[in-house]
Amino acid sequence: MDKLMILKNLAIIIICAKSLALLSRRLKAPQVVGEIIAGLILGPSLLGWIKPNDFLSGIAEIGVILLMFSAGLETDLNQLKKTGVKATLIACAGVFVPLIGGTILYMCFYGFSSFGTDEFFHALFIGTILTATSVSITVQALKELGKLTDEVGTTILSAAIIDDVIGILVLTLVISFREPSSNIGDVILRTVGFFILAFIVGIILYKIMKWLDNKYPHTQRIPIIGLALALALSYIAEKYFGIADITGAYVAGIILSSLKDSKYIDSKMDVNSYMIFGPVFFVSIGLQTDMKALDMTILLFSLGFVLVGLITKIIGCGLMSRLCGYKGLETLKIGVGMMTRGEVALIVSKKGLEVGMLDSKYFTSVILLIISSSILTPIILKLLYSKDESSSNQGSSDKNSDKIKA
Amino acid sequence: MDKLMILKNLAIIIICAKSLALLSRRLKAPQVVGEIIAGLILGPSLLGWIKPNDFLSGIAEIGVILLMFSAGLETDLNQLKKTGVKATLIACAGVFVPLIGGTILYMCFYGFSSFGTDEFFHALFIGTILTATSVSITVQALKELGKLTDEVGTTILSAAIIDDVIGILVLTLVISFREPSSNIGDVILRTVGFFILAFIVGIILYKIMKWLDNKYPHTQRIPIIGLALALALSYIAEKYFGIADITGAYVAGIILSSLKDSKYIDSKMDVNSYMIFGPVFFVSIGLQTDMKALDMTILLFSLGFVLVGLITKIIGCGLMSRLCGYKGLETLKIGVGMMTRGEVALIVSKKGLEVGMLDSKYFTSVILLIISSSILTPIILKLLYSKDESSSNQGSSDKNSDKIKA
Repeated sequence: MDKLMILKNLAIIIICAKSLALLSRRLKAPQVVGEIIAGLILGPSLLGWIKPNDFLSGIAEIGVILLMFSAGLETDLNQLKKTGVKATLIACAGVFVPLIGGTILYMCFYGFSSFGTDEFFHALFIGTILTATSVSITVQALKELGKLTDEVGTTILSAAIIDDVIGILVLTLVISFREPSSNIGDVILRTVGFFILAFIVGIILYKIMKWLDNKYPHTQRIPIIGLALALALSYIAEKYFGIADITGAYVAGIILSSLKDSKYIDSKMDVNSYMIFGPVFFVSIGLQTDMKALDMTILLFSLGFVLVGLITKIIGCGLMSRLCGYKGLETLKIGVGMMTRGEVALIVSKKGLEVGMLDSKYFTSVILLIISSSILTPIILKLLYSKDESSSNQGSSDKNSDKIKA
Repeated sequence: MDKLMILKNLAIIIICAKSLALLSRRLKAPQVVGEIIAGLILGPSLLGWIKPNDFLSGIAEIGVILLMFSAGLETDLNQLKKTGVKATLIACAGVFVPLIGGTILYMCFYGFSSFGTDEFFHALFIGTILTATSVSITVQALKELGKLTDEVGTTILSAAIIDDVIGILVLTLVISFREPSSNIGDVILRTVGFFILAFIVGIILYKIMKWLDNKYPHTQRIPIIGLALALALSYIAEKYFGIADITGAYVAGIILSSLKDSKYIDSKMDVNSYMIFGPVFFVSIGLQTDMKALDMTILLFSLGFVLVGLITKIIGCGLMSRLCGYKGLETLKIGVGMMTRGEVALIVSKKGLEVGMLDSKYFTSVILLIISSSILTPIILKLLYSKDESSSNQGSSDKNSDKIKA
């Protein structure tokens, strides 16, 4: 890999990603969308200026680890305990209905296949991509409406966080099941083994970090050790347990999420992430998508994918919230609030490409789902809330609030 | 390059580098020393756990760009203008005496060679490494004595900053002269061409950035555009002018150094730098050094290199400061204060390895010089100041002061 090429690629990626992210923001879409579009423009779909290469995919890989670590760090365990049961049930429905919906959609297009075949896993993977709601896009939509902290808002947010956890579990299992060498018992054993290990190591590391954090708060060593932990757990998860590395990074984040300095660590990861690693990751999604190669089938599939993605969340979360005692419009608000998809859907897709369970042509479908869900959710939520009596609840404090200055 | 290998390498590098950096700090040596020693331990000299590879050298390359960009950003153009003439003269003497001293030392060991031969350039490069005083180590030493802001302190600091500029110029010229295709006129033309271009583009970019900075202060876009500028100028310098990429990054930093948000940009670069890129850069210096391969000649050479490195700065800067009107102990303080070497010496060495003007075995000499100069300078300075009447000047404000929390 030529050194000058690295400098040139990075300069172009960073500047294009940021410009389009800002444009995207101005158009009320999430910045991620702009960064992906930057990749589409720079990649084979349009200009062909940048070709995917080993160095960029290494950087993108670290980018994913940082993003998942950060997602783990932002998990508020206390809030989860509080909203607990209801949110968990809604999250579960919001994971399994889209999972099944996506799987069936794929089979409708490409024929039904029996369990264990490659085609079956391709179908299942399409469903897996649909599982995780985007916490950050949901937070932003609710915050703009001033509805983040009322009962429905809290439920949506908690369910969105919990469905990340469940989504990661589903991903872990789906990938492991597919390995030729593995049988179901083995997979479950390894997964359980990893989480037990993570739990024990987690408690020990948490105690050590807590001691360090009390002794040296706000020092460089805190985020540095945190990052090393995330990298190490990612490595151990994949190398010794056959579990996706991103699961390890996410778990590392959750382990440290109750630390006094968890926000401090997160803010440092955020700087690393938005400056180089994040843009390279999202741009590389665009680079790997070749719009020119699209045919009618994939376009129709994408349309179906978007519809199924949106509707299954509304049905799953809406119905479950009714069972949990919410009424009328509230159930619809919860369903719509859970529709958003973002970073995690992309991370899961990229993982699928890596392990050979997803063709890169489906990136287009995922990108379309992210764009449409993040445009439609705020609009529909606004409509639903305006049907209510006007309320003046203007809550606005949350863990992501300092991430807005772009 | 295996993805799991990347995760493992990074986790090990980050945790070892930081641990040894902290240990190093506790022993009153600069943290850089600890990070290099981490590399020596992890590399072929001792454990052999990590082998230099393409990905790591790519990361290290970005690390150097970040460091030089940061050095440029920290340049205080106003202070330079104030202390101006005297500091410049002292800096010049502090560049040229060591340059000549190093060159002669090499020739004493390996025989005299005439201008234009490869051997001549190897000798000249040894001199080039000796040119740049370490601003950060000098600042720390003076600050601990509470002497950073008195007249002598200001002169030392300004001269240390200016000798970076002159050192970079010397490096640029030395590397360019050596290219087989180039003649002196051509080299000077290209160098002048680059600086004229950088000046013009710099003014335009500075105006644009100033406008952006006033409109959107403290937003992500400011450091991101800054970084892209640094990468782009590095690329353009090397690709189109045959000038070292680090020169481009340094110039980019100087262009933005008068910006209101220059400290803000610098703090963001710093996070990127200390978390991943910096440790990888310094560790990779250690990784490329094979202590086992050392023979008696290189050990003796290293001893000479350290002595010449220290003494030439004292002679050059001391004598020139006498000519500038300083008296007695003051001249010695200035000479000793300019002795420190650090990051820039390493960056120059690594550049030398890259262009084939330096063998990696000399890394040992450079590392020894950094260690001994950074241990001796504070000790000797303290002795010299204690010979004065006790003074209570307790200045402590400087641009680096917020970099201390490790």
